[in-house]
Amino acid sequence: MPDRLRTHIEKILPLSDEEFEYISSCFTYKKYKKHQFLIQEGEAVPYNYFVLKGLLKLVYTDEAGKEHIVGFAMEDWWETDFSAYYQNQKATMSLECIEDTEVLCLTLADYRKICSIHPKMEHFFLEKAYMGFISAQQRIISTMTTGIKERYEQLLEKYPSLVQRVPKSLLAAYLGVSRETLSRLPL
Amino acid sequence: MPDRLRTHIEKILPLSDEEFEYISSCFTYKKYKKHQFLIQEGEAVPYNYFVLKGLLKLVYTDEAGKEHIVGFAMEDWWETDFSAYYQNQKATMSLECIEDTEVLCLTLADYRKICSIHPKMEHFFLEKAYMGFISAQQRIISTMTTGIKERYEQLLEKYPSLVQRVPKSLLAAYLGVSRETLSRLPL
Repeated sequence: MPDRLRTHIEKILPLSDEEFEYISSCFTYKKYKKHQFLIQEGEAVPYNYFVLKGLLKLVYTDEAGKEHIVGFAMEDWWETDFSAYYQNQKATMSLECIEDTEVLCLTLADYRKICSIHPKMEHFFLEKAYMGFISAQQRIISTMTTGIKERYEQLLEKYPSLVQRVPKSLLAAYLGVSRETLSRLPL
Repeated sequence: MPDRLRTHIEKILPLSDEEFEYISSCFTYKKYKKHQFLIQEGEAVPYNYFVLKGLLKLVYTDEAGKEHIVGFAMEDWWETDFSAYYQNQKATMSLECIEDTEVLCLTLADYRKICSIHPKMEHFFLEKAYMGFISAQQRIISTMTTGIKERYEQLLEKYPSLVQRVPKSLLAAYLGVSRETLSRLPL
């Protein structure tokens, strides 16, 4: 299973066996069942998660109790309530399994250790952060300028396997429409 | 003027005089008048800009020709069409001065040189990238869950001096409402 992490990191930079041995020793493996929570709103966020297997949703619940899907995560994606994780605050979002899920967990202290012992890993995390920022900015633009049908089609084009695996009701919550509206679209 | 850059970087990490001398030698100083463009849609994006003085808007224009404000930038902020800059593509957005503006410009090649000669600068850029990602994600959540009045108040709380300086018509375009709707709100 750590092989998946090594392949993932080596898409950006090469690692020696020794380097990877140290890096992977900083992660903890955990396994969750569908519907279990990795992060619950109001609690501490000790980990950033690298997904080995499974599917998750990052959810923000508004004051009226309505669930908004901030993002999904599946194999090879990183996910956490990043603002809470990085700034040592309580979670404002929850992270819940849509399928049985296996993850590698990284604490902020171990993340800092990795970067201090192997500074080139800052380059890896910087690439990931830039890609996350670009995706978030593209989603802002898409929400401002594009209709639901086009946003569904963009999602399908960018992440075909995600759209196949995620229940339609959750896709609707991600796109900000009701399940009924989504099913009435000529998709 | 480069002192402003040094103070800005040293909020995150200390620099020796030699380190800062090299880093600042990688930037080019430019001055623009109100209404001039730093980036125009469809053109190359050679620079990431550090704002020394002034106020800018990052704009996405949709197919119907309607302007959507993706973001603002003022003193000490970094701004560019980041996706185009980092991936060497043509701009999909434009960056235009709302006030007379002075910036320090950094090419991607010089950015890479800085990181390779002073690897600790990757830590600085990583911090900036995380903050950009957190802001973008908070804006996505805010757009999904919050009314215009609350979003205006959040903006005012987070960036009081920005809200004072930006014309109301541009704030309305940032919030995704008409100037009339914004002025009818009980703010």
